[in-house]
Amino acid sequence: MKSRDLYSLEELTDAEIGRLLEAAASFRGGRTSSVLARRSVALVFLAPSLRTRSSMEAAIARLGGHPVVIAPGAGAWPTEVRDGVRMDGDAVEHVREAAAVLARHHAVLAIRSFPGLEDAEEDRRDPVLAAYRAHSTVPVVNMESARWHPLQALADRMTLRRELGPSLATRRIVLTWAPHPKPLPTSVPASFLLAAARTGAEVIVARPDAFALPPDVMAAAQAHAKRTGGTVRETADQLPAFDRAHAVYAKSWGAPEYVGRWDEEAPIRARHAGWTIDETAMERTEDGIFLHCLPVRRGVVVTDGVLDGPRSRVIDQAEDRLWTAMAVLEELAGRTAR
Amino acid sequence: MKSRDLYSLEELTDAEIGRLLEAAASFRGGRTSSVLARRSVALVFLAPSLRTRSSMEAAIARLGGHPVVIAPGAGAWPTEVRDGVRMDGDAVEHVREAAAVLARHHAVLAIRSFPGLEDAEEDRRDPVLAAYRAHSTVPVVNMESARWHPLQALADRMTLRRELGPSLATRRIVLTWAPHPKPLPTSVPASFLLAAARTGAEVIVARPDAFALPPDVMAAAQAHAKRTGGTVRETADQLPAFDRAHAVYAKSWGAPEYVGRWDEEAPIRARHAGWTIDETAMERTEDGIFLHCLPVRRGVVVTDGVLDGPRSRVIDQAEDRLWTAMAVLEELAGRTAR
Amino acid sequence: MKSRDLYSLEELTDAEIGRLLEAAASFRGGRTSSVLARRSVALVFLAPSLRTRSSMEAAIARLGGHPVVIAPGAGAWPTEVRDGVRMDGDAVEHVREAAAVLARHHAVLAIRSFPGLEDAEEDRRDPVLAAYRAHSTVPVVNMESARWHPLQALADRMTLRRELGPSLATRRIVLTWAPHPKPLPTSVPASFLLAAARTGAEVIVARPDAFALPPDVMAAAQAHAKRTGGTVRETADQLPAFDRAHAVYAKSWGAPEYVGRWDEEAPIRARHAGWTIDETAMERTEDGIFLHCLPVRRGVVVTDGVLDGPRSRVIDQAEDRLWTAMAVLEELAGRTAR
Repeated sequence: MKSRDLYSLEELTDAEIGRLLEAAASFRGGRTSSVLARRSVALVFLAPSLRTRSSMEAAIARLGGHPVVIAPGAGAWPTEVRDGVRMDGDAVEHVREAAAVLARHHAVLAIRSFPGLEDAEEDRRDPVLAAYRAHSTVPVVNMESARWHPLQALADRMTLRRELGPSLATRRIVLTWAPHPKPLPTSVPASFLLAAARTGAEVIVARPDAFALPPDVMAAAQAHAKRTGGTVRETADQLPAFDRAHAVYAKSWGAPEYVGRWDEEAPIRARHAGWTIDETAMERTEDGIFLHCLPVRRGVVVTDGVLDGPRSRVIDQAEDRLWTAMAVLEELAGRTAR
Repeated sequence: MKSRDLYSLEELTDAEIGRLLEAAASFRGGRTSSVLARRSVALVFLAPSLRTRSSMEAAIARLGGHPVVIAPGAGAWPTEVRDGVRMDGDAVEHVREAAAVLARHHAVLAIRSFPGLEDAEEDRRDPVLAAYRAHSTVPVVNMESARWHPLQALADRMTLRRELGPSLATRRIVLTWAPHPKPLPTSVPASFLLAAARTGAEVIVARPDAFALPPDVMAAAQAHAKRTGGTVRETADQLPAFDRAHAVYAKSWGAPEYVGRWDEEAPIRARHAGWTIDETAMERTEDGIFLHCLPVRRGVVVTDGVLDGPRSRVIDQAEDRLWTAMAVLEELAGRTAR
Repeated sequence: MKSRDLYSLEELTDAEIGRLLEAAASFRGGRTSSVLARRSVALVFLAPSLRTRSSMEAAIARLGGHPVVIAPGAGAWPTEVRDGVRMDGDAVEHVREAAAVLARHHAVLAIRSFPGLEDAEEDRRDPVLAAYRAHSTVPVVNMESARWHPLQALADRMTLRRELGPSLATRRIVLTWAPHPKPLPTSVPASFLLAAARTGAEVIVARPDAFALPPDVMAAAQAHAKRTGGTVRETADQLPAFDRAHAVYAKSWGAPEYVGRWDEEAPIRARHAGWTIDETAMERTEDGIFLHCLPVRRGVVVTDGVLDGPRSRVIDQAEDRLWTAMAVLEELAGRTAR
């Protein structure tokens, strides 16, 4: 890997992603490593987590290391991210110091920080991850930021590869928007879309009109498809998109154009409550597998029947978080002596 | 052990309990094991803990493993337990997924979830533990549920055995209700009573009339006593029960019949504030030892004099949580390759 | 070390401090130790922490051990410290039991508990640390208490030694008060002052008139200086104190005489907002290094220019927390078999 950090899969080449997936598969097959023996990894959580923390902690332990979980504002000091601020408010510590100090104690820093969803420009700058990357002297892993969730996308690719074969060139993959009581970030669907678009597959994004993913994400997806011989297209007509699909990836997200005006978005979102994925929809697929990053709201995003049915691979997908996390940590921990 | 899980000692045979106690004693004597090397155990806490977390973490570390502490609703997503629910409320994740995913990352899952104490039928179903057992593919350890606290009962048996000898057939053991500002669950006293009743000892339950333990618990205790040649009897007359006792196990619990109507129970409980165990009461015993699961409210449940006096074994009892946790984890971790 | 615990550097001889610093330097140089293999250390946090937790966890992991983080009142039971209290309030557990039980599970107990800052006499008794020391049967490490922060002072000494040479006899060291939105404890400045005063250096305490450190602390500093051939003097004139200084240690603290009457102190503190350390002040020094224990409020305590400039050693100082923590744990863990 040329990048010191794992911030977004967009910073990795196809070959680098391929090597990480091979390393992950070999860990799943029983390979072991002691790359983190007597070393520690800081896991900084500014947002809740189950799978990410569970898989990262298990991955670190399997590599012989020790995870240190830090929650600024809950047990650790609340942190300031902005530069040049006079810190006379609630923030007790600046990320400049927090990142630099943690980098002196640990082999790798991993950070989770969701978008504020109030100011689209602010979220696009991905301020917390950017600050940790700028001020850490050891590799930084993005455990889901305002913009990206590369660990999830890597696990998604591992599951797709195992389920649908090493070449996805002849496969149809649907990323479908789904209903949800709250507007969610686009980090997961954007990361998945870009990861899928670089496989040469036929990728369809099904979402209501107001829920188009950001233009720069769509443009990047098109560029990936062009380069790899695949296609990416969008539709506002959900069910036909499922026809002959080999994989359905469900995820809800808030309409990007309404960031900061969620009261206007809510009724539009409510109007598409019928987008819940059910068994009838899945029957249109080519025995397609069902994927979701979890956590998932049963009966809202997807029916119990689909989730508990024979085509669901959501638990395998969550297991793949463990093997891909090991591959990423092995790669990054090799770059620092600490 | 025939059971994959440690849910309640009621699922274990006398011989299985005996073997766990021997394993625990050998760990106390210096035996070591690497059964959890490079493996992790998820500790899911839906209720506070000091001894249980401390002893489980220390036990896992001594076995070479790594504990991952998860607190749904505090750092991890709040979870839904009920099946068939449309999840459009506060719960972000269903236990079906949480349990299944954690089981893919860790060798063993351990869960703590207290009763709601609002609906006796609900509590009897022990919904959180039941859900984790149903949806985990690796062994589940009950770290105290709505109904049982098997890790505590096992430690209690270890302390009794060391203090009173391997055979308790000629020993008198008193389980006494005690005052408390709040109504507490019956998991500890029920678990202790059933564990004590299968030793062949003479067991006396001293509690005010309104505070009888649930009929099914008492019936199970009688069955154990019959089978092992012991006796179990109840009395509402606290002090005479202490006469010639070899062990006094103090614990408060809310009156089971008043679950959900605690405002009616409070004045009855207040009327028995005199049940605080003091040195005068302990003098009636046959140099009896004093036991309590901790935490204990000083001056309410028991006087400082008893707790700090020569007959108290509460700290030894809490230490035994470590050795018995090691025995349980060694036994269960042997059953899964993960 | 003659003391079983690390409570305050005041309980250590100069030679003992010297040996800890040498051990720390050798860890920094690459020495390893397995003194904590298969053992655990309880880290009890009654106040927030970043550096202390991060450095202690990393130190324990590097020594082969496992840290168990306990937060009474947040995941663990809230604890009572006072003796002879009838516990019918919020506290569920007494420190007598908490300390004794943790001491049965772990090799070392480490405790953080800030002063209440409401009752100076109470704070002087350092009640939480005193209780843990009294009731633990294994070594206790003070991770910052109402009175002292010995781990910080040890790291401060390590940084001073590396930066200014093994003998500080000809060095001028300034401890300067700094502005802050809130009144802070004196544990850090008092610990630093006493650690610096026993090096034979010329030590100057610059603080506004109302902010003199407690008389017993100043007297102890004078005694150290006398013994080691150094000097300690105080001034209310900040900038001249910086002249020809080799190190400037900045820290804010609340005026000790106003404990419990902070509304009266606030306007006095506000009047000294000009004490912010800036580059002009640092230019008066003899290329002096800038030190601070962190976290630091940028633009209030010190300007960005100083903090991010070439004379700042605050990140090195925070790194030294790791090596000194290893030295302390190695020393103390050797004293207990658990």
